[in-house]
Amino acid sequence: MPGGIDPHTHLAMEFMGTETIDDFFSGQAAALAGGTTMHIDFVIPVNGSLVAGFEAYKKKAKKSCMNYGFHMAITKWDESVSREMEIMVKEKGINSFKFFMAYKGSLMISDELLLQGLERCKSLGALAMVHAENGDAVFEGQKRMIDLGITGPEGHALSRPPVLEGEATARAIRLAKFVNTPLYVVHVMSIDAMEEIARARKSGQKVIGEPVVSGLVLNDSGLWDPDFVTAAKYVMSPPIRESGHDKALQAALSTGVLQLVGTDHCTFNSTQKAFGIDDFRKIPNGVNGIEERMHLVWDTMVESGQISVTDFVRITSTECARIFNIYPRKGAILVGSDADIIIFNPNSSFEISASMHHSRTDTNVYDGRKGKGKVEVTIVGGRVVWQDNELKVVPGSGKYIEMPPFSYLFNGIDKADAKYLSSLQAPVKRYFTAS
Amino acid sequence: MPGGIDPHTHLAMEFMGTETIDDFFSGQAAALAGGTTMHIDFVIPVNGSLVAGFEAYKKKAKKSCMNYGFHMAITKWDESVSREMEIMVKEKGINSFKFFMAYKGSLMISDELLLQGLERCKSLGALAMVHAENGDAVFEGQKRMIDLGITGPEGHALSRPPVLEGEATARAIRLAKFVNTPLYVVHVMSIDAMEEIARARKSGQKVIGEPVVSGLVLNDSGLWDPDFVTAAKYVMSPPIRESGHDKALQAALSTGVLQLVGTDHCTFNSTQKAFGIDDFRKIPNGVNGIEERMHLVWDTMVESGQISVTDFVRITSTECARIFNIYPRKGAILVGSDADIIIFNPNSSFEISASMHHSRTDTNVYDGRKGKGKVEVTIVGGRVVWQDNELKVVPGSGKYIEMPPFSYLFNGIDKADAKYLSSLQAPVKRYFTAS
Amino acid sequence: MPGGIDPHTHLAMEFMGTETIDDFFSGQAAALAGGTTMHIDFVIPVNGSLVAGFEAYKKKAKKSCMNYGFHMAITKWDESVSREMEIMVKEKGINSFKFFMAYKGSLMISDELLLQGLERCKSLGALAMVHAENGDAVFEGQKRMIDLGITGPEGHALSRPPVLEGEATARAIRLAKFVNTPLYVVHVMSIDAMEEIARARKSGQKVIGEPVVSGLVLNDSGLWDPDFVTAAKYVMSPPIRESGHDKALQAALSTGVLQLVGTDHCTFNSTQKAFGIDDFRKIPNGVNGIEERMHLVWDTMVESGQISVTDFVRITSTECARIFNIYPRKGAILVGSDADIIIFNPNSSFEISASMHHSRTDTNVYDGRKGKGKVEVTIVGGRVVWQDNELKVVPGSGKYIEMPPFSYLFNGIDKADAKYLSSLQAPVKRYFTAS
Amino acid sequence: MPGGIDPHTHLAMEFMGTETIDDFFSGQAAALAGGTTMHIDFVIPVNGSLVAGFEAYKKKAKKSCMNYGFHMAITKWDESVSREMEIMVKEKGINSFKFFMAYKGSLMISDELLLQGLERCKSLGALAMVHAENGDAVFEGQKRMIDLGITGPEGHALSRPPVLEGEATARAIRLAKFVNTPLYVVHVMSIDAMEEIARARKSGQKVIGEPVVSGLVLNDSGLWDPDFVTAAKYVMSPPIRESGHDKALQAALSTGVLQLVGTDHCTFNSTQKAFGIDDFRKIPNGVNGIEERMHLVWDTMVESGQISVTDFVRITSTECARIFNIYPRKGAILVGSDADIIIFNPNSSFEISASMHHSRTDTNVYDGRKGKGKVEVTIVGGRVVWQDNELKVVPGSGKYIEMPPFSYLFNGIDKADAKYLSSLQAPVKRYFTAS
Repeated sequence: MPGGIDPHTHLAMEFMGTETIDDFFSGQAAALAGGTTMHIDFVIPVNGSLVAGFEAYKKKAKKSCMNYGFHMAITKWDESVSREMEIMVKEKGINSFKFFMAYKGSLMISDELLLQGLERCKSLGALAMVHAENGDAVFEGQKRMIDLGITGPEGHALSRPPVLEGEATARAIRLAKFVNTPLYVVHVMSIDAMEEIARARKSGQKVIGEPVVSGLVLNDSGLWDPDFVTAAKYVMSPPIRESGHDKALQAALSTGVLQLVGTDHCTFNSTQKAFGIDDFRKIPNGVNGIEERMHLVWDTMVESGQISVTDFVRITSTECARIFNIYPRKGAILVGSDADIIIFNPNSSFEISASMHHSRTDTNVYDGRKGKGKVEVTIVGGRVVWQDNELKVVPGSGKYIEMPPFSYLFNGIDKADAKYLSSLQAPVKRYFTAS
Repeated sequence: MPGGIDPHTHLAMEFMGTETIDDFFSGQAAALAGGTTMHIDFVIPVNGSLVAGFEAYKKKAKKSCMNYGFHMAITKWDESVSREMEIMVKEKGINSFKFFMAYKGSLMISDELLLQGLERCKSLGALAMVHAENGDAVFEGQKRMIDLGITGPEGHALSRPPVLEGEATARAIRLAKFVNTPLYVVHVMSIDAMEEIARARKSGQKVIGEPVVSGLVLNDSGLWDPDFVTAAKYVMSPPIRESGHDKALQAALSTGVLQLVGTDHCTFNSTQKAFGIDDFRKIPNGVNGIEERMHLVWDTMVESGQISVTDFVRITSTECARIFNIYPRKGAILVGSDADIIIFNPNSSFEISASMHHSRTDTNVYDGRKGKGKVEVTIVGGRVVWQDNELKVVPGSGKYIEMPPFSYLFNGIDKADAKYLSSLQAPVKRYFTAS
Repeated sequence: MPGGIDPHTHLAMEFMGTETIDDFFSGQAAALAGGTTMHIDFVIPVNGSLVAGFEAYKKKAKKSCMNYGFHMAITKWDESVSREMEIMVKEKGINSFKFFMAYKGSLMISDELLLQGLERCKSLGALAMVHAENGDAVFEGQKRMIDLGITGPEGHALSRPPVLEGEATARAIRLAKFVNTPLYVVHVMSIDAMEEIARARKSGQKVIGEPVVSGLVLNDSGLWDPDFVTAAKYVMSPPIRESGHDKALQAALSTGVLQLVGTDHCTFNSTQKAFGIDDFRKIPNGVNGIEERMHLVWDTMVESGQISVTDFVRITSTECARIFNIYPRKGAILVGSDADIIIFNPNSSFEISASMHHSRTDTNVYDGRKGKGKVEVTIVGGRVVWQDNELKVVPGSGKYIEMPPFSYLFNGIDKADAKYLSSLQAPVKRYFTAS
Repeated sequence: MPGGIDPHTHLAMEFMGTETIDDFFSGQAAALAGGTTMHIDFVIPVNGSLVAGFEAYKKKAKKSCMNYGFHMAITKWDESVSREMEIMVKEKGINSFKFFMAYKGSLMISDELLLQGLERCKSLGALAMVHAENGDAVFEGQKRMIDLGITGPEGHALSRPPVLEGEATARAIRLAKFVNTPLYVVHVMSIDAMEEIARARKSGQKVIGEPVVSGLVLNDSGLWDPDFVTAAKYVMSPPIRESGHDKALQAALSTGVLQLVGTDHCTFNSTQKAFGIDDFRKIPNGVNGIEERMHLVWDTMVESGQISVTDFVRITSTECARIFNIYPRKGAILVGSDADIIIFNPNSSFEISASMHHSRTDTNVYDGRKGKGKVEVTIVGGRVVWQDNELKVVPGSGKYIEMPPFSYLFNGIDKADAKYLSSLQAPVKRYFTAS
C-alpha cells in the first residue's frame, strides 16, 4: 500500500523555552520505521517573518531522510505577513497556514486576525488550519487550577475542558463559512469539536477534521499518575480527554465525519517535561506518535472492523495527499506516482516500547501496547529503507515536496461566490421623502 | 391579568451620535397604552463609570410615569468597573449586566472581558446578558458591502448574516458554562441562535433566550423597500431575518425553548434614520415595539393557538419578574403584589398605525397591522391609567423598582461548584524519578 | 402549596396473571402520606369493552379516600371501540387514551390502530398517550436473552435497550404530527426518547414528556443484585436505564424539555415478583413511587438547585392539571380551587423504608433513601388527612374528578388544519393529451 | 474513468397492474449511452418464491447487453423464504435483500418480518435494504386526499409527506442497530431521512444512504402541472420533495453523509401513467434516469464545485462496487479489473430530451436539461459499445455478475457481537429468600 503521510508533526521546534528532542533525522527515522514516508511539519515564523521562518526550517530539514512538506503558522498580522504569505504560496510550495486560537500571549491570534487570515488564504488558494481552543478561557482555567493548588499534570486537562475546544471549533467553522473558504481543524480531541464538524459538513460546508492518534486511542487517566514522568508525558493540547471521547472519535472517523489521522508528534524527554514539575503550565506540550500511527490506526480501526483496508489507506495517506494537493504523486500506487510504498503484514504483530522506538525521547505514551499488523518493509522513492527491523537511511537524502495551492477543496468556491454576488440585487434604487 | 413587563428597552439613550426619540415619558406612555406596566432599561456607563451612568439615567427617568428597573451595560474592564458593579448590585437595585459582543469600536467587549464579567456577575448573583453577534466579522461584513457598492438599508442585513449571531451565541453560552453562571441572551433573532440555546438547555444549562416582537412577527423584506424612510425604519441589530426565522422563533417560544418576549424598543425618527442615507452603517439602529408587544404577541401566539392564555401571561410578564427577581411583587395578581393589572378583551381588536401610536417616532414598523384582542384598561399601582383609549398619567409618577440579586437562576450554582471542587481529587501526591 | 397530582398510576390492575397489591385505598393512603392529593389511573378495557372497563374501575375505586381521575387504555380497534371512546369523553369524564406500542400479544397495538386512535382522539379533543417501546423488537430481545441463558432480572433490561424506546417515541411523535394532534409520552426513561421529544418541541410540535421518579433517581445496577427479591423489585418497563440517563432526564426536566413527573406506581410484592424466578419475562412489571414522588423530586431537583420552588409546583401539580384540563380547580391555590393543599417543610427531612411506607408491597425501590424536605400536612378538600405522621382517612371518601376534553393543547389545532387545507390549491384542473 | 454502476433499477418489472416499459435491452441501451456499464436490478419473488422470482428474472435478463446483478425483494416471511435466502446467497450470487416498509397490501412488510429479515441477512452476510416510508400512514394519507377531492398527481406528494419517510428511516436504522447489521436506505428523498442517516453514521453505525438523481435535481413543482401527462411522469415513491430538499441532499452527498447515487429507473409511458387519470393512487410509480445519471450528477455536483472528480467516480461507481462486494473487479481501472471504462469529456455538453433518449418511455422527467460534460465513449469488457453517439450492442451479450456476501460493511460485526456477549456477565448467580 502507499506509504503513510502524517499531516501534523513538529520536528526541531522551539517551543515553551526548549526545543523538541526529535529533529528532522530522528523524527523521520521513527516515521520510516512505522511506515510513514512523508510528513508535513509546521514552520514557525522568526520574529514574525515568514521568509525567515521558512529559511530556518529549510536548514533544520537539511538532515532529512524522507519526503517532507511544510505548513506555515501565522502568529501576527500586518502588511508584510500578508505579502509573505503570497511568497510562501507562489514561490515556496506552501499551501496551508495555521492559526492558533490558543496559547495566549505567544501564538494566539484574535478573531480579527483570523478573519484577515481566512480572507488571505482564500485569495491565495491556501488552506486555513486552526488549533481550536478558546485561549482566553484556557488562561482563566489555568489560573483557576493554580489557585486551587492543583499544579500537577492533571491540572492541564482540568484547566481546558472540552467545552472550550467545542467553542473555538464552532467559531472557526462559522467564520470560515462567513468568508466562504475551506477549513482544516487540526487535532480534534473531543466529542464537542467533532459534533461541530459533523453539523457543518452535513450542510455541505468544506470542513476537514483531523483526529490524532493520541486522541483516538488514549484517555486522560494517565495524567493522574503519581509518577510525574509518567503523568507529564501525556501533556499535550488540546488535552487527551476522558474515556468516551476516544470511542466517539473512532466512530466519526469510521464514517467519514472526520477524514484523516495525524499525530501532532512533538516530543520532549523527561528532563524537558520536568520544567513543569511545580507548575503544569510549564510542562512542554506534546506527545510522540509518528512511528506508531500506522500500527495503532490499523489495530484500532481495521482489526476491530470499524473500517476497511481501503479506508485505512485513505485516512493514513490518500486523503492527506488530496487535501494538500499532491495526489496522485503521493497517496497512491499508480504509474507516475512516487514509489513510496510499504509492505504491511496483517498477520504479524507489533509491540511498542520506549526502549525500542526510534524517537529520541525517553518515554512513549503508547508504551506496552501490542496489536495485530506490522509494517515489514518501507520503500521511499523506490529505495528500501526499512526491512527486517532495520533502517537504511542517511541524513540529507530527504526531499522537500512543494505543494501547490487550489486543492480540490477550492472547487466551486468561486462559483458559489459568483452566485451569491449575482443574488444581491443591483443596489436598490432609493428615493427619500422627508416625512 | 398582570400588566406586561418589557425586559428590553432603550429610552433616552445616546447612541450612534444621536438620542432615541422616546424618553422616559413618551416611551412609558406608549407602554401603558399597550398594557405594559413595567420595563427594564439599559443604563450606559458615562466615560466608563457605572455610578455616573446610573446617576444620569436616574435623572432621565425623573419624568417616568410607570414602574421601571435598570440593567447596566459593561463596556470596558478595570478594577473600578468591578468595584462599581458591586455598588450597583448592593446599593442601587441592579441585578443584571449586559455585554455587547458586537458594535466594534464602541460597546464591543473581548472574550477576556466577557470572562471577567461572567465571573464577577456570578460572585454578585447578577445575571449576565449578551448581545450576541461576532463584532469583528460584522465589521468585515460591513466593509464588504460598502466595497460592493451596497450602501442602503439592505446592506445592514447582508453584512451580518445569522451565522454570526449563531457564532456569538454559541460562544457566550460555552463561556457561561465554563464559568458556571446563568446567561440571558437578548434579542434572539435567528434559528442559528435559537438552536444553540435549545442545545444548551437540553443539557440543563441555565440559559434564557429572549426573542423580541420584531423578530417574531417581521421578516427582512422591508429592508429592500425603495423608499429609504420605509427601509431604514427596519434597521436594528441583530437584523430582522429572512422569512422562516420568524416562524421558527414562534415555535421555540411556544414550547419553552425561548422564555419571554422583549421589544428592544429603541426609536429614532425619520430624520435621525436619515443620518445613514448614504451609508447604512450610520443609520441609527432600532425599532419600536413597547406599545405593540402585548397585542402582537397575543395575536401571533394565542389567537393562532400556539400558546395558551396562561403561557401568554408567563412570557409577557411572570417569567420576566422571576428572572429579575421581583416576583411575586410583579408578574402576578396575588395578595401582596403591586396592583399592576390590565383588562384584556380577546373579542375586541387592535390596529396599529404610526399616526395613532403614543411613541414620538414618526414611523412604526408594524404600521397597518390589525388583529384580535385589545388592552382596554391598564392599572398601575391600583390607579387606572389607560381606559377608553385615553391615558391619564403625569410625568414623575413613576417608580424605580429595585431588583435584588440571586434570582432563582442562581439556585444550585454553589452546590454544583462545591460538587465539582470535591470531585477534584486532592492534588495528586507526586514523586519524580529521573529516568 | 397545591397538593401533588400523579398523572400515572396503576392501582388494583390485573396484569401479567396477577393484580397489583395496592388497591385504591392502600395506594391512595400512600399518596396522601406523601403529599399527593390526586392521581390519574388507567382503566383497562374488559374484553375490549371500554364501558365494561370503566364500570369495573368505578367499582374498584369505591374504596377511594382521595381525588382520582381516569385515563383509558385502547388495546384493540373496531367500530364499538370508536363509539365507546365518544361515550367515555362525553359522558364519563375521560379525556385521554393510552396506546401501548409494547407488550406484544397482550396490550400492544399496530401503527394502523395507532393512527386510527390518534384521529379519533383528535376529533374528540382527547389526549393520546403512548407507552413507547418497539414491542416486536422487545419480543426478539427477550428470546435472545433466554437463548443466551440469561433468565434473571438483568435480562429484562438487556432485552429492551434504549434504542427501542427511542424508536417508538420517534414513531409516535411523527404519526401524531402527521395527524396533527397533541401527544403525551408516558414514562420517558432514556436519553434516546428525551432527545426525540426535544427535537419535536423545538419545532413547535405539541408533545408532552413525562419522566417518572424511578427513571429520574435510579439506575439499572439493582437489576444485577444477586438477591432475586432485590433485583426483581426494580423490574418495570421501559426499564430503568444505565447511570447517565437519570442525570440527562433531570436536566431536561429542569429546562422544560420534559414537563411533569409521574410515578407509574404499579406494585407487586415479593411473592408476585417471584412468578418470574426462572424467567424474567414472567416477573410482573412495576415499581412503587406514589408516596415518594414529592419528596424525591424535591430533594433531587430543588435541593440540588436544578429547579425553583415554583417549578416544583408546576411539575408535580399545576402542569398536570392544565394538561388534563382541570386547572385551576386542581393544581392551584386560588379562590374557587378545591382546597387540596400541602404544607411542605424544606428544613425537615425524610427517610424511605419498606417497613415504614404505606403501600402494601413488602419492598421499596427507594429503600434507605434520605433527603431534605418533608410533607408535614396534607389537606384534601379542606380536610386535614395527614398530620404528625398520621393518616386520617376512611375508604369511600374519595371523589371522582371528571376531566373535560379540549385542553389547552388543542388550541390552534383546528386553525392549523384550516390553514393547511386552504393551502392546498383547489384541485388542479387537468387536461390530458394523448402523446 | 470506470464505467458507472447504477445500484437501483427496475427493468421489466410487473408493478401496479402493468410492466415497466424498459426491459433489459432498452434499459441497458439507455444506460450504456449514458456511461453506465453495470446496474443492479431488483428481483421480485413469484408467489412468494425467491427461486421462482430469480428464474423469472434470469429469463427477462436474457436479452441483456451489459453487466447486471440482482438484489432480491422480500415480501413475506416463512421458513421457505428463509431457506431460499440462503440459496440466493450461496448459489445465485445475490448479496442484498430489500424490504418495503410501504406499499401496504402488496409489498409492505411488518416490523416483525423486518426483524427476522435483518437477522437472516446478518447471518448470511447479506446487506439489508429498505424502502423507508410508513405504509400505514401513507395509506391514511391517500384516503385523506381522495376524501378532500384531490385525485391528481399532486395528491401523491401531499399524501406521503417527508415526516413519514423520516419515521421509517429512523425505525429501520434503529432496528438494524438492535440487530447489529449494516443497512442500506434506498432512494433517500428528504432532509428528514438524511438527518436520520447522519445521526446514525456520526455514532459509527454502518448505514448507507442512496439518494437518486430525481431527488437530487428535481423538486415537486412538476406535480402541479395542469397537463396530466407532465404531472404524472414525476410520480414516484417516496415522492420528489419541495425545493430545499434537493440542495440539502446534494450537500450531504458532497460530504459523505450519503454515499452513492442511484436512479430507481422504473419507467412507464404516458398510456400506462394514464391508468391513474382519475386517482393518483393508480398512477404507476416511477421515473427514468439510467441514461441521465452520470451527466446530471457531473453537472450538479462537479461542475458546481461541490465535489471533485475523484468523488464523482466514487459516488457513481467505486462505492457501489465496494458495497456490493465486487470491487476491484468493478468500480476501478486496475490490472485485473473488468475493462468497463468510459471516456468523459468535461468540456463537451449534454442535452436531454424525450425524443432523443434511448429509453422506450415517451416522456423524460429531465426533458430540456442541458449541462456541461459528456460521455463520449463507453467500453464494456474491453469492447466499445458507445461512440459518436452510436450504440453498438446486441441483445444477449450481457453478463450476470455474481456478488459474494460479507462485504466490507460486515467487518467487525462479529467482533462487536463477541464483545457484547462477553460484556454480559455470566448469568448472575441468584439466591431467593422469601421475605
